Amino acid sequence: MKIQPPPGMRDFYPEDMRIQNWLFDHWRSASRVFGFVEYEGPIFEYLDLYRLKSGEEIVSQLFHFQDRGQREFAIRPEMTPTLARMVAARANSLPRPIKWFSIPRMCRSEKPQRGRLREFYQWNADILGVDDPLADAEVIAVAVEFLRQVGLTRDEVAIRISSRPVAAALLRSIGVAPDRADRAFALIDRHDKLPPEEFARQWDETFGRQAPAARLRDLLDRTTLETCLAIAAREADAARASEQVRELWRRLRDLGVAEYCEFDLNIVRGLAYYTGIIFELHRRKPGLRALLGGGRYDNLTAMLDGPSVPGVGFGMGDAPVLELLSKLPRLSEMIDAFLIDAAPEFFPSLIEIAGDLRRDGVAVDFSYKRQPISKQFKLAAGREARFAVIVGSELASANSLTLKNLGTGEQRLVLRDDLKAAIRS
Amino acid sequence: MKIQPPPGMRDFYPEDMRIQNWLFDHWRSASRVFGFVEYEGPIFEYLDLYRLKSGEEIVSQLFHFQDRGQREFAIRPEMTPTLARMVAARANSLPRPIKWFSIPRMCRSEKPQRGRLREFYQWNADILGVDDPLADAEVIAVAVEFLRQVGLTRDEVAIRISSRPVAAALLRSIGVAPDRADRAFALIDRHDKLPPEEFARQWDETFGRQAPAARLRDLLDRTTLETCLAIAAREADAARASEQVRELWRRLRDLGVAEYCEFDLNIVRGLAYYTGIIFELHRRKPGLRALLGGGRYDNLTAMLDGPSVPGVGFGMGDAPVLELLSKLPRLSEMIDAFLIDAAPEFFPSLIEIAGDLRRDGVAVDFSYKRQPISKQFKLAAGREARFAVIVGSELASANSLTLKNLGTGEQRLVLRDDLKAAIRS
Repeated sequence: MKIQPPPGMRDFYPEDMRIQNWLFDHWRSASRVFGFVEYEGPIFEYLDLYRLKSGEEIVSQLFHFQDRGQREFAIRPEMTPTLARMVAARANSLPRPIKWFSIPRMCRSEKPQRGRLREFYQWNADILGVDDPLADAEVIAVAVEFLRQVGLTRDEVAIRISSRPVAAALLRSIGVAPDRADRAFALIDRHDKLPPEEFARQWDETFGRQAPAARLRDLLDRTTLETCLAIAAREADAARASEQVRELWRRLRDLGVAEYCEFDLNIVRGLAYYTGIIFELHRRKPGLRALLGGGRYDNLTAMLDGPSVPGVGFGMGDAPVLELLSKLPRLSEMIDAFLIDAAPEFFPSLIEIAGDLRRDGVAVDFSYKRQPISKQFKLAAGREARFAVIVGSELASANSLTLKNLGTGEQRLVLRDDLKAAIRS
Repeated sequence: MKIQPPPGMRDFYPEDMRIQNWLFDHWRSASRVFGFVEYEGPIFEYLDLYRLKSGEEIVSQLFHFQDRGQREFAIRPEMTPTLARMVAARANSLPRPIKWFSIPRMCRSEKPQRGRLREFYQWNADILGVDDPLADAEVIAVAVEFLRQVGLTRDEVAIRISSRPVAAALLRSIGVAPDRADRAFALIDRHDKLPPEEFARQWDETFGRQAPAARLRDLLDRTTLETCLAIAAREADAARASEQVRELWRRLRDLGVAEYCEFDLNIVRGLAYYTGIIFELHRRKPGLRALLGGGRYDNLTAMLDGPSVPGVGFGMGDAPVLELLSKLPRLSEMIDAFLIDAAPEFFPSLIEIAGDLRRDGVAVDFSYKRQPISKQFKLAAGREARFAVIVGSELASANSLTLKNLGTGEQRLVLRDDLKAAIRS
């Protein structure tokens, strides 16, 4: 019986896994130079955790099931609810700031189709327990650190930043009633995906009487950070939010990452739980999906009956980033040495030497079949070994082996006791 | 609404995650020195993949669910079926030998209770495409390499090895009919878990007439490798299997790992798919669960309609190993430097220096709150920073900073341009 891989899921053969590990290594090293520490959570959670955060409509997008005790679970579609649960459970004992990252795998019940993955990995970096826009700047800066590490420049990508309360104030300034801001955000979120006339039609249908689409367009297209903040500052309750955006920009400049950042009111983030600054990473080429999405969420732990802990963070999916990085470095699973027997009678000695070298941390392999030297050399090349070691009659006569550098072709006899050092040098 | 972690699942807070990463690093490095390359598969597979391998009774032990298209999936309870599927799909193009490892997470629908995890990680190492007992010796040796790396000696643990065909021949020699060998194995598998009288009663109930329990006991307790092989060699079809066990032992000796290994007919491995050598890792203390289980499976890829590819490998769970390693090394998430401002006016410069150092790969953090130097030093100590860097008036006057080694207490002024090198040295 032939069984296929599940639709929308990926098999990582070794050549694919090397790329994943390369990406994960960069995510980890960017996180670590910023002082983030790693955490993980379970692959599935109580379904209620996602219901609580995102409402009943999320359920159809999840893989969910019951255990024998009729408990309802769902494979995690995102990490933030788990993070909020873990922080809420220890809110009083965790040292602040909580500066955590994770590289969770997660699933969404997408309809299987080309390019729509049902399973993916995501880099999450979050800072909790800090209200200051400095924390927002730090999470944006760690994302930029990754972009720089993998060679993505400000000409290729941009972090587009907005602020929920500033945007709400601006919407009020053109006539959108405060209690309708969420509906307006939901529509603006689809702005890039709809033809302009269709967007205007839908907007006017809902908001036309108070705030015609043309006024919204003016706002979205023409307004700079400074004019936005000036308008927002005149609206009640938005003065502090404006000042926070200004402060964020100062910190982005101090951290040396402002060149990657742009203020952009088009960014609204669909999810309802953001309360402050929101941001996305995009290619400069228009019309493509966001590579990263994040923002400030100050109410999540309180929703889980924990103390209120302010938070800010983002998630970056693996597939969009790898798609963008067309020129991946040439990655290989190099071994240090491939051992070759000059004749089958030397094979037991070869195995013994392999055992010794490996015990000393030298990555060594050899052919499991006894075959001519030339074939064994081919295998060595196929494995991209740095050295070949030929075990032959010199072992008995002079306690020596032939060491060949497969890069330079240089070849010499070395004492068995010096082999490890010669390979390491 | 308070939401608990799902029963039997683990949250990995940073201090737990450090231990996981320490374990994973050792699994990876042992694999790599042996020339294994890493792969991964999807977190869930078609339910049929597990039905096919283990029969309908496996279903109740799995977390399974349907997608909107009525397809049935299950979260993987083990990695071997995925491995067999991946190898079967590319059996003709993958270079041989296929020498792969993975560190999958997986789930089993255990009844939630203390010490019974529903989610766990497992180190899997397999060699496919090689018939030779040398491959069996290599997978056993890579497990021993890990044991040595983490300091587990042959006095604490042993790899207990048997062979399905040799054991079947021995069972025949005491009167168990060939077609009842699987039933006998299933019972012997519970041997360690049952009181001796109960085991004898159950055995005699099924096999008493042909092969009384007392004869089995003689076989299990008293028989050495050499006598076993001698008996088996007399049985039809078991001569080759006996020779393979002998060859395995030779290779284990060549590889320098035989001291960890014992021949033990009690080892049968419950799962039906093993066809040759089987083995488990146990603590010397009796009565505890196996830390690792594995063996040779030569029919798996053919079951999946692929060409027949012989294979041998094992899985080692994370929880039992960590339980055993009572003396874990002291692990910390050390940063290179913690930056301290002598007064709030120096804070923008501090952030800028942090940005520069991080860009150069130096792990740096600082307080998000402006507070007295003494408090900042406390934070630096809490983060186990190697150095504290004090940003003060010397920056403007002499382009210099105070660098304090937090290990030795030694403190000196360094030029800003030399800071990175001073921290690195």
